[in-house]
This record gives sequence, C-alpha cells and structure tokens, in this order.
Amino acid sequence: MNVGGLLASAGVNSVVCLGVFSLYSVLRKQPSLVAVYFAQKIAQSKSKHHDPFWLGRLVPSASWVVKAWDATEDELYVAGGVDAVVFLRAVVFSIKLCTVASIICLAFVLPLNYFGKERQHKHIREELLTVFTIGNVQRGSEWFGFHCLVLHIITICACFFLYSVSTIFPFGFEFKYIMKMRLNHINSPLYHPSQFTVVVRAIPWIDQESYSDTLARFFTDFYASSYLSHQMVYEKSAIQKLMSDAERMYEILRNIHMERRYVKRLLRCGFCGSHNSASQDFRTLSDESNNVTNEKTFLDDSDECGAALVFFRTRYAALVASEALQSQNPMAWVTNAAPEPRDVFWANLCVSYQSLWIRKIIVVVASIFFVTFFLFPVVFTQSLVHLDKLTKLLPFLEKAVKRVVLEQLVTGYLPSVILTLFLCLVPPVMYVFSTLEGVISRSERKRSACIKVLYFVIWNVFFANILTEAAIDHYQISILRLGDYKNIPTLLAKAATFFMTYCLTSGWASLACELIQPFPLISNLFTRYILRSAEDSYFPYTFPYHTEVPRVLLFGLLGITCSTLAPLILPFVLVYFMLAFLVYRNQILNVYVTDYDSGGQYWPIIHNTTIFSLVLMQVIALGVFGIKDAPGPSTFTFPLIVVTLLFNQFCRQRFLSVFFRTPAKSVIEMDRRDEQSGQMAEIHQSLLTAYTQYYSNSGNKNKDMINRTDAELDETETLDISHA
Amino acid sequence: MNVGGLLASAGVNSVVCLGVFSLYSVLRKQPSLVAVYFAQKIAQSKSKHHDPFWLGRLVPSASWVVKAWDATEDELYVAGGVDAVVFLRAVVFSIKLCTVASIICLAFVLPLNYFGKERQHKHIREELLTVFTIGNVQRGSEWFGFHCLVLHIITICACFFLYSVSTIFPFGFEFKYIMKMRLNHINSPLYHPSQFTVVVRAIPWIDQESYSDTLARFFTDFYASSYLSHQMVYEKSAIQKLMSDAERMYEILRNIHMERRYVKRLLRCGFCGSHNSASQDFRTLSDESNNVTNEKTFLDDSDECGAALVFFRTRYAALVASEALQSQNPMAWVTNAAPEPRDVFWANLCVSYQSLWIRKIIVVVASIFFVTFFLFPVVFTQSLVHLDKLTKLLPFLEKAVKRVVLEQLVTGYLPSVILTLFLCLVPPVMYVFSTLEGVISRSERKRSACIKVLYFVIWNVFFANILTEAAIDHYQISILRLGDYKNIPTLLAKAATFFMTYCLTSGWASLACELIQPFPLISNLFTRYILRSAEDSYFPYTFPYHTEVPRVLLFGLLGITCSTLAPLILPFVLVYFMLAFLVYRNQILNVYVTDYDSGGQYWPIIHNTTIFSLVLMQVIALGVFGIKDAPGPSTFTFPLIVVTLLFNQFCRQRFLSVFFRTPAKSVIEMDRRDEQSGQMAEIHQSLLTAYTQYYSNSGNKNKDMINRTDAELDETETLDISHA
Repeated sequence: MNVGGLLASAGVNSVVCLGVFSLYSVLRKQPSLVAVYFAQKIAQSKSKHHDPFWLGRLVPSASWVVKAWDATEDELYVAGGVDAVVFLRAVVFSIKLCTVASIICLAFVLPLNYFGKERQHKHIREELLTVFTIGNVQRGSEWFGFHCLVLHIITICACFFLYSVSTIFPFGFEFKYIMKMRLNHINSPLYHPSQFTVVVRAIPWIDQESYSDTLARFFTDFYASSYLSHQMVYEKSAIQKLMSDAERMYEILRNIHMERRYVKRLLRCGFCGSHNSASQDFRTLSDESNNVTNEKTFLDDSDECGAALVFFRTRYAALVASEALQSQNPMAWVTNAAPEPRDVFWANLCVSYQSLWIRKIIVVVASIFFVTFFLFPVVFTQSLVHLDKLTKLLPFLEKAVKRVVLEQLVTGYLPSVILTLFLCLVPPVMYVFSTLEGVISRSERKRSACIKVLYFVIWNVFFANILTEAAIDHYQISILRLGDYKNIPTLLAKAATFFMTYCLTSGWASLACELIQPFPLISNLFTRYILRSAEDSYFPYTFPYHTEVPRVLLFGLLGITCSTLAPLILPFVLVYFMLAFLVYRNQILNVYVTDYDSGGQYWPIIHNTTIFSLVLMQVIALGVFGIKDAPGPSTFTFPLIVVTLLFNQFCRQRFLSVFFRTPAKSVIEMDRRDEQSGQMAEIHQSLLTAYTQYYSNSGNKNKDMINRTDAELDETETLDISHA
Repeated sequence: MNVGGLLASAGVNSVVCLGVFSLYSVLRKQPSLVAVYFAQKIAQSKSKHHDPFWLGRLVPSASWVVKAWDATEDELYVAGGVDAVVFLRAVVFSIKLCTVASIICLAFVLPLNYFGKERQHKHIREELLTVFTIGNVQRGSEWFGFHCLVLHIITICACFFLYSVSTIFPFGFEFKYIMKMRLNHINSPLYHPSQFTVVVRAIPWIDQESYSDTLARFFTDFYASSYLSHQMVYEKSAIQKLMSDAERMYEILRNIHMERRYVKRLLRCGFCGSHNSASQDFRTLSDESNNVTNEKTFLDDSDECGAALVFFRTRYAALVASEALQSQNPMAWVTNAAPEPRDVFWANLCVSYQSLWIRKIIVVVASIFFVTFFLFPVVFTQSLVHLDKLTKLLPFLEKAVKRVVLEQLVTGYLPSVILTLFLCLVPPVMYVFSTLEGVISRSERKRSACIKVLYFVIWNVFFANILTEAAIDHYQISILRLGDYKNIPTLLAKAATFFMTYCLTSGWASLACELIQPFPLISNLFTRYILRSAEDSYFPYTFPYHTEVPRVLLFGLLGITCSTLAPLILPFVLVYFMLAFLVYRNQILNVYVTDYDSGGQYWPIIHNTTIFSLVLMQVIALGVFGIKDAPGPSTFTFPLIVVTLLFNQFCRQRFLSVFFRTPAKSVIEMDRRDEQSGQMAEIHQSLLTAYTQYYSNSGNKNKDMINRTDAELDETETLDISHA
C-alpha cells in the first residue's frame, strides 16, 4: 500500500465518521429515539418529554460534544461508577502518551526513517508506506541511537503517567474522595449492603438438619457477637414451585379484590427477573405485608443450596469473616466478600463449590482451544490483503483485480471488515465461558470475560497478523529458517501497514457504531413502525467493558509498539483515542445504566497490558537494533527492559492488593461513623431486605441506594432534550 | 558399564556402609562421644553418665537399629516436631511406592526389556546394563502395552499414597492429634506465643514521634479490645551500645560482689547469641531483677526499627490482625503471623519492607545464575565417566587407562565423588540467598533454601546429566539435529546407568556420612586430644532439612522416572530409602535439636515434587512409545498425564491453604478452652517475656515451653547409653 492509498482510506473513513456523528446529533434530538440514546436517564427519572416538532431537531449540531467534554469526573462517577472513571482515565492516559509519542516520532523519527537509506525518493503520494518505517534505515547507521533515545522517552513518560494515575485514584478515590462527595447527602444512609455481607458456600451437609440450621449454628457459635442474620440461596428449580404457589396466591388476592391483571402478568413472567412493571407491582404487594421472610413461606428446606448470604453487625466483622479460613477443610465453609445486591450472579451461587476448580480448568482449556481455532479466519482475512499473491494461485481472479477500485477496496477494507465481523462473535463466547467458570458476581463475570477477550485480541490481531504476514508472503516464508532473520524489520513494517488500515476501519468505525447504537436503534424502529407497538422498547444495557477495554488496549498496544518502527500509525491512533474520549463520555453519561461496579478492578488489567506493550516495543526494538548491526542502542535498550519490569513489580507491590482487598482501617472508620450517627440500627433493618434472589431490575430501583440514588441525580439535569 | 561392574560397585558400597554402621554402633557407646551422637539428649537433660569401661562398648551391635525402628510417631514428634514427622512420612511414602514399583517392574518389566529384542545374550555378568532398559525392546513391539499398564499402576499407587498421607496429617495432625497428646500435661500451659503475636513491619515514620508511640496509637485505636502490648525491634547497631552499657553494669555487679569472670565473658560474647553459659548467667541476672522492659532501659527510641511484635489478648484477634490489609497503602503497616520466639530471624526484621521485593528479585536472578554456572563442573564430572572418549582427545592417558583397576575406579566412582563434593557447596550458598531474601523466620529461611536446593539438584543432577550424556557421546551429538530423535531411549538408558552408580555412591554414602557425623566427630576429637580441653565441645545442630529433603526427593525422582525405563535402579533406590528410614529416625531421636518448626510446610514441596516426577515419568514414556512406534500405549498415556495433573490441582484445592493459613475455627476453640480453664491471664503475663531479641539458645531453654518441655521428655529415656 502506498501513501495515496492510505490517505484515500483515511479520507473515506473520516467522511463516514463525520457523517455518522452528524446523523447521531440529529437522531438524538428525536423524541421517539429517547429510549435508544438516553436509556440511562429514562431508567433514572422515568419522566418523558414529548416535545413539539421544531426545526432545530433536523440540524446536525455539536452540542453533544460540548456536553461530553464539559462533564466533570463527579458526574461521570454518578453516571457510570468507578469502572467508568477508570476506563476514561485509561483513554486519557492513552491520549497523553500518544500525544507525546506523536510529537517526538513524527518530528524526529519519521524523517530519520524516510532518509535512512540513500535512494531515489518517488513522489510522496506514490511512496510505499514501508519507506517510513525503521526497515528503511541503513544497516549499522548511527541514527539508531536516536531511536533508542525515543524508546527511553516514551517508556519514561508511560511509566510516569501510569504511576500518577495509580497514585491518584485507586482507593484514595474509592474511599475518601467519593465518600466526601457522598457524605453531603446526610439523610440518605449511603451504605453498601455488600460491606456487611459475606457469601458462604460449601456449607457441609449434616443429616437431619437443614443447611440454614447448620449455618445459623456455626455463625452463632463462632461469630456470636457480630452475626446478625442470614439468607439462604435457593435452587433454580424452586422457581417452578414458586410459580405454582403463585397460583394459590391468586385465589387469596382475588378474595381481597385485587385487580386480576396484575396476577395474570405475574403468572406469565413475574419471577423471571425481566424488566416489567408486573414484578414491581408484586414487590409493592409484598412490601405491604412487610414480611421479611416472605420467600421462606414459599420455599422448603429441600430447595436450599449449600450457599447463603450472612449479614454481620459491622463492616469490619464481615471483612474479617470473608477473609478468614473458616475450617480445617478449605473446601467447606468457604467465605467470600459478597457482591452488591444487583451484582450477585445467583445462578452460580448454587454451583457446587467442589466442582469450581475443575470448571475453571475446563474453561481455561476451552479458551485456549477457542483462541487457537480462531487463527483460521484471520489467515483467510490476511490472504485477501495479498490479492496479487492470490491471483497467482487462482488465475481467474486476475481480471477482477485489474479494476483499480476493486483492488483498493479489497486491499484496504475487506480484510478488516471480515475480521471485525468475526471478532463480534468473540465477546459473547467469552462471556459464556466466564459464566461457566462459576463466578458469583456479574461484575466479576464481565471482568473475567474482558481478560479473555484481551488475550484473544492481542494474540489474534497482533501476533497472528505478523505471523501470517510472514507465512503468506512467499519471500518471507524463509523466515522460518534460522539464517534469514534479517527480514524481520521489513516484515514488521508490513504488518504495521495493516495495523494502520485496521485502526482506520475497526477503530474509527467501531466508535461511530458505538455512538449510533445500531442494534437498539433498529429494534426501536422495528417495534415502533413495523409492530406498531405503543410502548417504547427500552433496553437499559450496562457498559460493555469486556469489549471496549480490550479494544482501547489493543490500539494502545499498536500505537506503542509501532511508535518507533512505523511512526505513521500514531496520528491515526491519536485521533481514535480523542474520538473515543468524547464518544465514551457521551455514552456513559446518556446511554448505559450502571447496575454493578467492580470498584476499579479494570485498572490492573490496563496497567499490565500497558507494561506488556512497552516491553514488547523494547524487545522488538532490541531485535531490530541487533539485526541492523547497532550494538550501542542494543546495549542501552536491555537495561530499559529490566527497569520497566522492575517498575511493574514495584507497582504490583504498591497498588495491586488495594484493588482486591479492603483495608481494615477504612472499614473500621466507616463503622464508627455510622455508630456515632446512630444509623446502624436502620442499616441493620434494611440489610435484611437488601438481597432478593428473585430479582427484578425495575422493581427494586427505588429501594436500593447502592449505585445511584435519585437524590444524587441533579434534578435540573434530567432529559432536557429540547435544549440539546 | 556391565552387570559385573555394577555388582562390584554395589558390593564395595555395601561393605563400606556396613563398616560405617558397625563403627557407628561402637562409637555411640563411647561416653566421650556422647556430645556428638546424643547432642539432643544433652541439650534436653544436661545430665551426663560417665560409665566405667566395659567390654560391650567395643562390640558392634544393632541395638540402635532396633531403637530407631521401635520409636513411635509421638516420640518422633516430641524429638523433632512436625517437620520431622513430615520428613519421615515422605521417606515411608517413598518406601511404599518403591516397593510396589520394584515388585512389578523387576518381576514383569525387567524380563520384557531383557528379551525385548531377538539377540545373542551374553553371560549375565558381562551383559551391558543398557540391555535391561526399555531401549532394548524392539520397535513396534506389542509389549509396550505392558509398560503402559505398569505406568498406570505406579501412578495410581503414588496418588493414593500421597492422598492418604495428606488426609491423615496436615492439620488434623497439627491441631487435633498433637493437641490431644499434649493436653495430658495439664500443669504446663502449652501455648504457642506466636499464636498471640503479630509481626508488624513498615510502621510509618511520623515526625516527633517514636515508632513505638505510633504503633501503640494505631493498635489502641483500631484494635482497642484485643490489643495487649507490643515489643519493638531494635537496630543491630544498638548491640554496640548495649555492650558499652554492659561495662557500666560491670561496675554495679562488682559492687554487689558478683564473680568477675561472668562479666568478662559477658563482655567477650554475651550478646552475640552464641551457645555459652555466660549468656545464661546474664539471663539469670536479668530475670532476678524481673524487669520486663529491661531492654528499654538500655535502648533509645532512635535505635528502633520500623518493626515490632504486637501481642493480642486472644489467638483469634492475632489471626485476624495478621491476615487483614491494615491501611490504604499496602506498603505500610504490613502484618504477618509471628514466628515462634526461637524461630524469629531478628536481623531481617529490621530490613526495610520497601526493599524486600527488589531483594527477592535479585535473589531469584542470582539463584538462576548460580544454577547455570554449576553446569560446568557437572560437565567435567561426566566427561570423566567416558574415559575412552577422553583418551581419544588426550592420547597420553591411554597408558593409564589400560590398568583395569584405575578404569573401574574412574568410571564407577570418581565422577560421583567429585559431583558430591561440589554439591556440598550448594546448600550454604542457597542458605545465604534465602537470608538475603529477607525472610523473618529461621524455619522459613530453611524452607526457602530447601526449595532452591531442590531446583538446583533436579536440574543439575537429573537434567544436566542427560544433556551432557547427549553432548559428550559423539554418536549422540547428532541428537541436536531434528531427525535423530530415535536415539533418545538409548540415551536415557545410558543416563539411567549413571544414576545407578550415583545412587550407590552419593545415596548410600551420604547416609553413612550422616550417621557417623564426621565433622562434629573430628572436631570433638580435635578439642579433646589435640587441644586437650576438659570441656566437651557441644554443637546442638538443627536438622538440615534444606539438604536432606532435596536428597530424598531426588532419589524419589530417579526411582520413579527410571522405573519403567531401567527397572534395575529400583532395588538400589529401595535399599537407600530403607536405610534412610532407620538413619534419619535415629538422628532425629538422638542428634538434632528442634529449635523451630515450620509446621509441616515441607509437605507441599514433597507433594509437588512427587507429582512432577510422575508427570516426567509419563512424558518420557510417552516420548519413548512414540519413538518406538507404539501408538496404542501413547494414546493411553496421554489421559494419564491429564488425570495426574488434575489430581494435583485437586490436592492443591483441598489441602494447600491449610499448610499456610490457620483455620479460624481451631483458633477460636483454643481461645475458649484457655478462657474456661482460666489460664488466659497467665498466658498474657508470660507473653510479655516470651520474645527476646538478644537471645541465647541455652539460656532460655527452660523458659519457653514451645517445642519441647522437659516434662514431656520421658525421664527413664535419658541417656541410658550403658544399655545401648
């Protein structure tokens, strides 16, 4: 591919993106699409404006960009929780690093690469992209010292940015900054029920005793002073039983002259956790009777799993109980910190704890197989890029290739598009794998899927592309023999060319796609105009961290590793991150709801991947310096690798455990505050109803004060679409 | 080497061993050598018999064998602690497994190997040892199915034995069985001070406040109900100060008419922790003044390290405090479970916690370099075995080689002897590495050294031997090329031949050496007859687990991996383990003292190494089956590997955490028992004096009731040498 091709591709993509962004700015002003583009605000406020038609609704505007830009971190936290803040900080980190790298590499490294070899330069438009890579620099050139210096500067900047983000936020953030922010609302007892709760699994089965009794005896015996109460987890099959019980209830309700339709809808899908108002009505009924143990009236002891939620009187007691090894047998009385009520993944709580280790192994093996199997479509995709090679194998293609437009299309676009389509399949599969693993919280499932997708993406997009590049290119096939390693720089340069087009297509396009929300949009239009349903189809999704975090990290990896090799990629990556910054802020503020939060546990993933990218960049550079006979730069690069790894180890020591464990000090201080303010009794009372296994999202919305209380939502902020 | 050579070697070694064992049975009856062979009993009872001369003293007898055999597990526990029991169980495990393997392999596999190929068999004495290995079986033979079956039987037996040992002992042992045994002594409050104690490191430095005040404030604030007291750790340089203070004390002592010599000796080495009676006298003096804070009178705040021992009112409170993450910064207020008083490694407590991670990295890197560097002597050693190849390179050796005795000596003995001598250097070096790592207990240091030595031994003895065998043998040098992998079975068979002689020399001889205790013996005789000192030189060593555990595990590895390949090694390994059983029991009962105990933490090492051996055996067999064109056995071996690894994973889940964490339940029950019996106050009182930084082994012996109380030592058992 030459410079002209790249510019054409960039031009097409820019126009497409601009078009989509404009389209979005119009669509978001349509009252009928509020459910698509302001799902979060609907979920929060439940009020809808039905504006009259006005002309401004059809004029594209940049007001959403301004709003996304103006949002403060507090607003983002309120809208998206800690995870959203972490994710956006990762994007900001990438922007900072890419800016530094772009300035240095475009200003200094690019000319060095371009004039690295004495040769007849063509007109710039017809110059091949490989001319701008490190592969073009003469062997033994003294200019490699400069590449090495740039490597050092980028590494130091990256480490500095990483460290500063880490120090600012993890739990200084979670516990001090946020608490301060939240303490303003004195009337709302802003407690996290999970802090008082411990998940107990693998309760031993004792003859002629229910799990519940065994559990109560154990905790009253060993945690007499702090044990408050417990709530058993029930088998899923018990739902069936509950359904038939509901029929009995129907009779009772009829007697007290309740409206029949409630109960009919209740029978249809009341216990399935779907988002409909029937279950909300059911909750109201239950609440009226104010019977805390309402589930027990429906459920037998025989429906109990060997798992339960145990509530403690103080946060500290719960923390201690969750961290201790309870009994001599580590496979019995397993305690873990409980997830927040909306975060609990009830189905997996019933999974036998004894089988978890084997499930994990199976999932790991399956994931490895999945990643390996996926190489085939990638190979196929890559083969399309080399259409000239394909035509040699399949001569009938020759005629088609002669049409320049087609060639441009095939070379520049199609491979990435196919790859992108295939990649769409990956997150759901990884999500299923993470579910099978037996995680007990939805946030943990998403985080686990995120890690799997990340491995997948890095292996299949980055490494597999380089490898297939090597395998397909007939000349480079000799790379497999030991002697011909000299071509590696050229090979990397060619791979970098693909990454540029990948960034343009997959990167920019994915952001446009994210913004316009094609699936909810189409489904909304479908229900409205084809089914002619009066009700808005309304899907409050949670933010797909498991696809977006790996994507952002992949482009970070591409940007960092290619920075000195092929600096021409940097502007594209930088533009990607800047767009990502605006788009994701907008989406977090308007579209996605925050049902659960991992408390910033994505940051270690981001940190580790960045370090991996840096080391990979250094190792590649070391290899290139070695091949290009530059002993000086090689010598200076090696200690850089060591220092980077030491920095990583230091950060692990300094920050890692804070992301996964709760400091006793903070918890004790929070307990004291609540005890002094006399709110403990109130909290204890509300604890007993905090967790509901047969859970409906909309029903409990106003009840739990976990992630977003309505009080926090600025009243003036709600849905002023008319002025958007 | 042929069968004759092997038998000759075995004969020589048997005679040597028998001679040494007889010599030992005579030497141990000499009253003058009691300090060498009954060091433990001297340390315990302090009484000495000086028998008149009687003839029986010069007659070898097997009474020590009978005594070692008869000792019960309780006696072994009393003498050697949990670690000794664990170690001996590992030996018993090896005996069991080797017996099963020997019976099956010698009866069925050996004939299969021997008649595996149609060939003219020589007279059995002149038959090469390789004829008895799997390398002799014809390619594509149907008999490999039998090898595969044997593989399965050995694996199943090994897993069964491993599991049964694991289930019987870890903490069912530590907490129930031992406690029952010990509870008989009602009058002695058998508490472990460490259970009430937490080591706090990285105490933050606050201006104008001593570490001690900061610590007291933190714990009275957050652990008000359970915090009892604390004891600061002081800089080593403070010892210097203490010495000058001692001079002042000298004056005081003179005034109260104490004998001068105490104080002179005190000045000479009183605070160095050496085993002399002067420090004991000093302790007596200190105890008389009954001043708990006696160290504080000598030491300033400025001598404090940022580390301390914090005492709690209950075991449970200490457990909780040791496991919690204390503050938002994981590098401050680091808490760990405290080691027992004699187990504390005071010097490392003062090491800055912030530097620990980098120390660990440096030690790991240094260990890897050390292991790599050591390959050179091994290569040299191996080259001597192949004298015929050496003579080709160095023709002047040819004359010497012609003398048969020399050849036998060089081929059979010298390589192992040289290797053994080199190996003697390894444990001290690894010990230093483990010290530098910054571990805070002596048992942990030994365990860490044990792991390093184990890696070293497995790599340098097992793998390096096979590799050098491949490199030196001119024919097999072609193995490095891909095509010639067919020679691997022959190569392994040759390596197995070396392992047989290694087992004979290094294995059997090391046991004889262990029994006769050459170093203490010589040093005893030297002081007695050359220096003509009246006092017994008396060295109570602790058991060298860091050399003996790796040795036993190495022979286990050799036995397991060679079992189907070269079954002829099994009888030698079995004899080794049987001798080891008797010798180590005897030594634990009589020679070594038990100052500290890791609580059975060697078992996970033993378990993992055994699994590694099994998998290695299976992988080697899989390779051999593949090379020998036996697809059926290959197919059946692969699932065996998977099942073995799954078994290991299961055991990790089921047992591992019990070895490194304390179950809350046990601790709470112990607390209750002490509270009900009213001993808590007494324990709290004694806690305050339990830990002494300037510590002398002999001085505190009667004071701490940790590992062996004198009451436990059966009075009738002490030193009845005359009837031995």
